[in-house]
Amino acid sequence: MALLDDNRLFPTDSRVRGLAQEIYSGIKGLPIISPHGHTDPRWFALDEKFPNPARLFVQPDHYVFRMLCSQGVDLDTLGIPRADGSEGEKDPRKIWQVFAEHFYLLRGTPSWIWLNHAFQEVFGLTETFGPDTAADYYDHIDVCLKSDDFRPRALFERFNIEALSTTEMALDDLKYHKMIAESDWQGRVISAYRPDNVIDPDFDGFAENLDTFGDLTGEDTGRWQGYLNAHRVRRAYFKEVGGVTSSDHGHPTARTENLDAGAAAALFDRVRSGKADAEERDAFRGQMLTEMAKMSLEDGLTMQIHAGSHRNHSQPMLELFGRDKGFDIPTRTDFVNNLKPLLNAVGMERDLTVIVFMLDETTQSRELAPLAGVYPALRLGPPWWFHDSYEGMKRFRENVTETAGFYNTVGFNDDTRAFCSIPARHDVARRVDAGYLAELVATGRLNESEAHEVARDLTYNLVKAAYNL
Amino acid sequence: MALLDDNRLFPTDSRVRGLAQEIYSGIKGLPIISPHGHTDPRWFALDEKFPNPARLFVQPDHYVFRMLCSQGVDLDTLGIPRADGSEGEKDPRKIWQVFAEHFYLLRGTPSWIWLNHAFQEVFGLTETFGPDTAADYYDHIDVCLKSDDFRPRALFERFNIEALSTTEMALDDLKYHKMIAESDWQGRVISAYRPDNVIDPDFDGFAENLDTFGDLTGEDTGRWQGYLNAHRVRRAYFKEVGGVTSSDHGHPTARTENLDAGAAAALFDRVRSGKADAEERDAFRGQMLTEMAKMSLEDGLTMQIHAGSHRNHSQPMLELFGRDKGFDIPTRTDFVNNLKPLLNAVGMERDLTVIVFMLDETTQSRELAPLAGVYPALRLGPPWWFHDSYEGMKRFRENVTETAGFYNTVGFNDDTRAFCSIPARHDVARRVDAGYLAELVATGRLNESEAHEVARDLTYNLVKAAYNL
Amino acid sequence: MALLDDNRLFPTDSRVRGLAQEIYSGIKGLPIISPHGHTDPRWFALDEKFPNPARLFVQPDHYVFRMLCSQGVDLDTLGIPRADGSEGEKDPRKIWQVFAEHFYLLRGTPSWIWLNHAFQEVFGLTETFGPDTAADYYDHIDVCLKSDDFRPRALFERFNIEALSTTEMALDDLKYHKMIAESDWQGRVISAYRPDNVIDPDFDGFAENLDTFGDLTGEDTGRWQGYLNAHRVRRAYFKEVGGVTSSDHGHPTARTENLDAGAAAALFDRVRSGKADAEERDAFRGQMLTEMAKMSLEDGLTMQIHAGSHRNHSQPMLELFGRDKGFDIPTRTDFVNNLKPLLNAVGMERDLTVIVFMLDETTQSRELAPLAGVYPALRLGPPWWFHDSYEGMKRFRENVTETAGFYNTVGFNDDTRAFCSIPARHDVARRVDAGYLAELVATGRLNESEAHEVARDLTYNLVKAAYNL
Repeated sequence: MALLDDNRLFPTDSRVRGLAQEIYSGIKGLPIISPHGHTDPRWFALDEKFPNPARLFVQPDHYVFRMLCSQGVDLDTLGIPRADGSEGEKDPRKIWQVFAEHFYLLRGTPSWIWLNHAFQEVFGLTETFGPDTAADYYDHIDVCLKSDDFRPRALFERFNIEALSTTEMALDDLKYHKMIAESDWQGRVISAYRPDNVIDPDFDGFAENLDTFGDLTGEDTGRWQGYLNAHRVRRAYFKEVGGVTSSDHGHPTARTENLDAGAAAALFDRVRSGKADAEERDAFRGQMLTEMAKMSLEDGLTMQIHAGSHRNHSQPMLELFGRDKGFDIPTRTDFVNNLKPLLNAVGMERDLTVIVFMLDETTQSRELAPLAGVYPALRLGPPWWFHDSYEGMKRFRENVTETAGFYNTVGFNDDTRAFCSIPARHDVARRVDAGYLAELVATGRLNESEAHEVARDLTYNLVKAAYNL
Repeated sequence: MALLDDNRLFPTDSRVRGLAQEIYSGIKGLPIISPHGHTDPRWFALDEKFPNPARLFVQPDHYVFRMLCSQGVDLDTLGIPRADGSEGEKDPRKIWQVFAEHFYLLRGTPSWIWLNHAFQEVFGLTETFGPDTAADYYDHIDVCLKSDDFRPRALFERFNIEALSTTEMALDDLKYHKMIAESDWQGRVISAYRPDNVIDPDFDGFAENLDTFGDLTGEDTGRWQGYLNAHRVRRAYFKEVGGVTSSDHGHPTARTENLDAGAAAALFDRVRSGKADAEERDAFRGQMLTEMAKMSLEDGLTMQIHAGSHRNHSQPMLELFGRDKGFDIPTRTDFVNNLKPLLNAVGMERDLTVIVFMLDETTQSRELAPLAGVYPALRLGPPWWFHDSYEGMKRFRENVTETAGFYNTVGFNDDTRAFCSIPARHDVARRVDAGYLAELVATGRLNESEAHEVARDLTYNLVKAAYNL
Repeated sequence: MALLDDNRLFPTDSRVRGLAQEIYSGIKGLPIISPHGHTDPRWFALDEKFPNPARLFVQPDHYVFRMLCSQGVDLDTLGIPRADGSEGEKDPRKIWQVFAEHFYLLRGTPSWIWLNHAFQEVFGLTETFGPDTAADYYDHIDVCLKSDDFRPRALFERFNIEALSTTEMALDDLKYHKMIAESDWQGRVISAYRPDNVIDPDFDGFAENLDTFGDLTGEDTGRWQGYLNAHRVRRAYFKEVGGVTSSDHGHPTARTENLDAGAAAALFDRVRSGKADAEERDAFRGQMLTEMAKMSLEDGLTMQIHAGSHRNHSQPMLELFGRDKGFDIPTRTDFVNNLKPLLNAVGMERDLTVIVFMLDETTQSRELAPLAGVYPALRLGPPWWFHDSYEGMKRFRENVTETAGFYNTVGFNDDTRAFCSIPARHDVARRVDAGYLAELVATGRLNESEAHEVARDLTYNLVKAAYNL
């Protein structure tokens, strides 16, 4: 008995499936490169045991709790902490039971595969998960978590992770990364420079953040040049202490600007004074994307832009539970006009890598593949968030490959907070790519030997190159 | 000989087709629940014979006549009545012949399947329909229609319809529903509350409609509270007399508003005075969607929003032939920003069901699946209108399931004016769902036993639950 | 050994593949009708030998050089001429070597198939192309090009082209078309009337162009009626001398207007004076689309609208290399509102054919199929530019057929500047259509005999009818 089909996610036609199996067999065992994600560096610094199954599988996984929420399970029942720090249900067994009773809601979603993958491959479970088996599952996983083999570092090694990047805000001291670096453990866990809270004037506490930013860097963040220098200093710190090779920018839109120095300084003054209106604040975010790209030309960091999420759609839920509770919704995104100032400034640079991630799939064939298929600096990130899935990945390849080819993409990102989903997600990506390549071979669009080479590039080489890993 | 392939719409791979056949066999015979549509209640009240084949198949079916129109057949030739009441061709045999000569235009469209389904399954015809067989077809169908077995109630029973909802405007007296209820016939034919002509200030005769609305309900529709009460009274009347379990709202956009009581009353005054500008009229429609949702919390009606059709695109054709003549064209629709006021007001309510229908498929994976995958009150209606088709349904499942799962959808709506298309359309939906589930099983994304359960849920249980039927 | 799989682009299931093979065998050998493209009429007028492989395959093919550019190959290295007339690399062998070294970038793109098709079918090459075989390829092709069998006219005949349309600007003298007509060669090479540079006020040299337009036609292009007459005269000239059967309009958006004569004249005066603002210039382009449609009613030219490309996205590259260098990017396009004035004016005309081409695939199922499925004058052009590909064609058929059917489409356009890609592209289209029709048959959505008929219509009859060829 098994939770997972060995041939899952492969094409169904037997000849094409055979091709997919062969292609997959060549990449299945390659080390995992995880160049962008949100796991907690503390795990790898302290290497403490995970406290219980609910903490591992339910509470950090917004894919899970948002689906339960959509069917009327309230977040208190799942012990999701409220904004005021209070917590509803505290008994992890009760939380686990609610999870099990609603597990059927995840049918047809990627979480169904990710969770079954972790149950089977990480914990050796093979009975179908549900209300009847919930208690056995809990007991079994709980026992495992109490053993050293399931500590974070042991799992990291077992998952065959060659490099993993977490993401820290610009004001973070990176103390866990320091601890990891100073430890005798060999695992490569690096950070990424995420300056949203010192770039986005709409961020809570923005003005205070700029003060702190000045203190941390010794630069005058009351003035435009000092503020830019603060970024330079902090980027250098992140490189040195966090081993970072990339910056990351989560903006509501993909807007960029390329103002001349005087106009940029004046805009900064408006923003710094707190008097900037919505349009000016948006322009400032746009200007800073271009500034970050220019700094990348100086210091070699790969730049990631994650654009197009309408954050915290439910005001009542934001007030009650805070950010990142499953109420971030994709919106229509424009890249052609919005990226133009940045691309006109630095798009032809061969030594720059700007990776764009999209939540609006309509831009794949219409805007992003045509842009990435001509600008040397531009690369396309893998399908993000809701599209990190079988259908999402298939659509991505079908929509972008014909115009951007394979070599303007950058392999896979797991982008996860759920540690055990890392091998599951990478396995899904490898299977979908193997299946896609098998279809190309079976329809005469690629030779078999080329398919094997491309598979290795998509899984391993492109991501290492794009992120300088 | 047969017009229809027994394995139509199933996946082509033989193993997957086998799985689809098994899944389909478990749902094929389930009763039809038709919770939203536009058949004529008069048919079931009076149970009169349908007059001739053209009246059954051509004139009520805008899918058919718009396609013939697109290739230069003018609507007069098909006897479609003009706005002034005049009619062109009156001989149903001539109309039938024109239809037959242009039947090839429907190749590759869902109408080809729906019509062949009705020809074969309802009338027992098996020769290919076309100019050469048109006369035989006419004669055969005409003979059938003269027999009691083909009266509306007999067909209703033969179609195995458990419940069918028509749609009536708020000012309708529901006399046919009353007649049905008072008859000894057991068929369940209910109505739905459609208040567009007393909510949309751009509706012809809006001011007079509000006067009538006041007369019918005994409320003062000259004032905001009286107007709201009129809705309450009328909704109660529709529940009592029409057995309604849902309201339905056809709006050009999905805009919602949630103004405070004072602002809403002031807006109503502007609208009532006829002085509201386009923006105010639009805001009023938006405000009323939220009001309707709040009334649903009071009276338990499920709320349906049909948004995104640009009605009557051709001004000359509107003038000549009136509304609903095939010139309604989908437009780009925003749900993220537009539904926000309503969802912020009542989206977290577990006792509310708001079903959203879309004509803009790009919103499926980008906006609607993420919204329905987190808000307890929100459900996704099945692919609507032009997307009520094999490819439309496949895309819908592929686009929404990974983020919204199956349980935030509500089964199938036929939404038809063409009575004989009801079993055909439900059969298409069952086949496409069976095929989709078979693909999930064959690619290891669902277990076979789960697939059987989900199939029954999609066909029967979810629709009954969503519409309280 | 072969570069191409005989069964390329067919469905993978063996039964469906068999159906596709049969359908394809019925259309494979049909003559090529190429009703819209950008080959150079000089080739067929002078019938000179192509100078070398790079000139045939690399420099005229923006699909190729843009992809190499995206990975850091600069255009000088490929000998693409700069705007100032200077040229970088002049040695065609060196250019060819760079091309070969980067050929792997085209994996998964249509260019991979088009180029391999030309290598194998036109030049008889069967070794895999790449750095190691580059020199042999060059030598072999170069030898071929020196023989009479590879002159333009000989290839035209070998490609089995029945009619081919080039595209000339309104001010062109059509001298090469005259030469062809006056020669004893029987090949049918016609032109198309492309008046962008005398319609679009944003075109470089617009005012001077209007002066020249007046000189050429003997009309007063300083006044609205004279300007319209100049179009009438020039269209007649193009018909007589260039054998044209169509006009072609490349506009940034699909905006149309239908102003009354006075307003149109006033708008023309503003535009003619050079004082029109951006909105007025845009309105003028829109007005002229409707004027062109009305002239089509007079003179019978089929009208083509190519809308939705953001031209010259990179300002630095425009300055350095000029137009048409791979930096044209599709944008979101609206057809429902934008085409309304034109369709309200002439959309119901049965003697008019307006063919719309889109780069925004989201409009296929949402806007264009519904519009073409009801307006007699409207037809849908095949997938354009970046979507002229296997996946692009599949999506097009899947998105539009269910609502617009087959008979509101117009067959295939190669739209190419790369002569040897013509048979390759038509072959791709025939294979994809055969595969699509085979899927319809295999899923019971079309009868086999109908599929054969539709295949011939899509390949040959519809294009001849739509373009009066």
